[in-house]
Amino acid sequence: MDSGALDRQGRMAINGDTRQPRVLILGAGFGGLSAAKALRNAPCEVVVIDRRNYHLFQPLLYQVATAALSPAEIASPIRSILSRQKNARVLMARVAGIDSARKRVVLQGGREEAFDYLVVATGARHAYFGHDDWERYAPGLKKIEDATDIRRRILLGFERAEAAADPEARKALLTFVVIGGGATGVEMAGAIAEVAHWALADEFREIDPTQARIVLIEAGPRLLPAFPEDLAAHARRALEQLGVEVQLGRAVEACDETGIVYGGARLPACTIVWAAGVQASPAAKWLGAEKDRAGRVIVAKDLSVPGHPDIFVIGDTALVMDDKGQPVPGIAPAAKQMGRHAGRVIAARLAGRTEAQPFRYVHAGSLATIGRSAAIADFGWIRLKGRIAWWLWGIAHIYFLIDFRSRFIVALQWLWSYITFRRGARLITGGDGEM
Amino acid sequence: MDSGALDRQGRMAINGDTRQPRVLILGAGFGGLSAAKALRNAPCEVVVIDRRNYHLFQPLLYQVATAALSPAEIASPIRSILSRQKNARVLMARVAGIDSARKRVVLQGGREEAFDYLVVATGARHAYFGHDDWERYAPGLKKIEDATDIRRRILLGFERAEAAADPEARKALLTFVVIGGGATGVEMAGAIAEVAHWALADEFREIDPTQARIVLIEAGPRLLPAFPEDLAAHARRALEQLGVEVQLGRAVEACDETGIVYGGARLPACTIVWAAGVQASPAAKWLGAEKDRAGRVIVAKDLSVPGHPDIFVIGDTALVMDDKGQPVPGIAPAAKQMGRHAGRVIAARLAGRTEAQPFRYVHAGSLATIGRSAAIADFGWIRLKGRIAWWLWGIAHIYFLIDFRSRFIVALQWLWSYITFRRGARLITGGDGEM
Repeated sequence: MDSGALDRQGRMAINGDTRQPRVLILGAGFGGLSAAKALRNAPCEVVVIDRRNYHLFQPLLYQVATAALSPAEIASPIRSILSRQKNARVLMARVAGIDSARKRVVLQGGREEAFDYLVVATGARHAYFGHDDWERYAPGLKKIEDATDIRRRILLGFERAEAAADPEARKALLTFVVIGGGATGVEMAGAIAEVAHWALADEFREIDPTQARIVLIEAGPRLLPAFPEDLAAHARRALEQLGVEVQLGRAVEACDETGIVYGGARLPACTIVWAAGVQASPAAKWLGAEKDRAGRVIVAKDLSVPGHPDIFVIGDTALVMDDKGQPVPGIAPAAKQMGRHAGRVIAARLAGRTEAQPFRYVHAGSLATIGRSAAIADFGWIRLKGRIAWWLWGIAHIYFLIDFRSRFIVALQWLWSYITFRRGARLITGGDGEM
Repeated sequence: MDSGALDRQGRMAINGDTRQPRVLILGAGFGGLSAAKALRNAPCEVVVIDRRNYHLFQPLLYQVATAALSPAEIASPIRSILSRQKNARVLMARVAGIDSARKRVVLQGGREEAFDYLVVATGARHAYFGHDDWERYAPGLKKIEDATDIRRRILLGFERAEAAADPEARKALLTFVVIGGGATGVEMAGAIAEVAHWALADEFREIDPTQARIVLIEAGPRLLPAFPEDLAAHARRALEQLGVEVQLGRAVEACDETGIVYGGARLPACTIVWAAGVQASPAAKWLGAEKDRAGRVIVAKDLSVPGHPDIFVIGDTALVMDDKGQPVPGIAPAAKQMGRHAGRVIAARLAGRTEAQPFRYVHAGSLATIGRSAAIADFGWIRLKGRIAWWLWGIAHIYFLIDFRSRFIVALQWLWSYITFRRGARLITGGDGEM
């Protein structure tokens, strides 16, 4: 198995004689799926390769980490999403490298897949800025397993505090630190506060969960740098009303299983969540392409890799500038727009049109939620906060969930949580889940 | 921390002076929870100890293993269930042993909990009849992690078959073996057949999931020995209509990662599920009590341990005879009845009544499902099969789910699956979940 198209069996072999151009898409996130769908009617074979069997709705991953939703409610099998797109195939495999000269993607295990066009949409992962050893103490939130791991840590914190005899140990077990004041950090801190103050309030006998300390630490001077100052200040007040301590302007200097050191002070804490930085997937290394400090490939105006007009890099893996000369943000709508653009450029080329098609990012708006009835929204022409922004946030997220079943079930789970103040997925599973 | 009641902090210390009798319940399954609830109004402190933070509705675990339901839909936090029972506490901990002379339960880590009365309801786990090495190749189905592991294996089987070049390898990847023809084995085999023939049917390009081979192997002469012969024969026909191969009278002789040997023949298979036997939890060892071959404690008529009138063993951990001299079956209703009985005996003793109260098992009926519109039910006075038994099975299981939220969500998931022939929780997570 070393030469892709020639080795495959069955139906593919039949296509062997009248071979269509082959578009490989690496990654079935928002960008990769949009690219695949944009090629729906194009005369080509589309192969989507992902190391997972599902597309993950990452914006709601923090709700899995805080026991509000189940993993399956925000994940859909890639095969189901593309089952009706007749020119699309799905392959579950991990990419080991790209041979751009021979136009082949090398998969783990040695198998190769040939391509005529390639779309790299492999996303990003956490970055610990040179402190990779922190990862085991302060997990980040990118994968389903990250979310169930963080859920396990948060819930175990309360369980172990209930059983602890020593007041100092109990205090550390009830201290939850979130590092990073971007949207993910703000959402995590708010949601943990809601778990402690509402969902668990009546259920312990030795401890009082409402006494839990939730600390949000941001090295920069303010929260939510992507939002206007007044909305960020509103978010901060809303967090503080939920009982979150917001600590700005002090970076984390050390991190281990007993807690953190920040701004010279030690904070004993048993649960630490990392939301401070991301690093692009190693596409630049695979392609030998130029990259920025975050590892993002610096792409041409049409999202192709300079020198490789048939290879496109999109989403969190690409550095693209908007009309104002700012980098396009690493958010789902941006990835979708890039995916659609790359798909359309490829479709145009397949149709024989070769004129340049520069990508133009349209920013629809920014949304972030803090907790129950608290959110902020910035649409440029209007800024919203509080209850109205929160409803908008909820409706938008339901709307963008990929399948009907998920939309319906998530809406119901939220309605139930809204009415009861409870959370439906409070399972401690995996690892130390069993005591 | 070595002397339980004396060492605990906070609210418990306040109770120190006017100490109430203390009932420890080990295990928050059907039996343990029923015992706790039966002590709701008794003048005692009830402490429920479980190594998990949730009660698991085990009868539907096979639906998690076959991607129909999410773990959180069949699991409820023990604390939530008991939050309104003011005399109940919950402790998440693992039992290491029982010191029946000193009336203390020893927890892992060395901590001890004193008791006046003890209810042991720690259930059962798989038994491999002396072949413990088979467990890694043929996992059983008792825990949430077992279910997501089996789900991962089943779904990965199809994914790897889609990528496989060698026809023999592909065939083994598409062969699913279920060992054991009791209710769990029948349900698993039927559900895997439904996954292959309906849920995945249109989603692959290289393989045809409907060609998957599902083999149910039972060493005994027939399926479902707990059911009358005619109903078991109906179940077998229903399975065969679903495309399951039923192999009776041949025991499995070997089992490894490439397949099994049974009745002298080798069957290459990449996914093997064990549903052939259970072994009681080590309560007999902890108590130094007499046990049967399956490890169950042989209890007195009131469910107490002979020689230890204050210690009760219930559920799958106890061997109890019904009016006909048959062992009470290891099913949820039996565990619930035993739990309620043990709770009532303790409550009566606390109220000063010491007359003997023998346990009497009332068998309400047996239900098993094979697949869509196919089930069997035996109520003694009436036997049902087919669609009516299937609806009855569904309604009974929804009814017995412990919380309102789960009932509602499970009913919706089933309705959705019934209409669409799809399955909502098709995630490959954990372990090799990421390729």
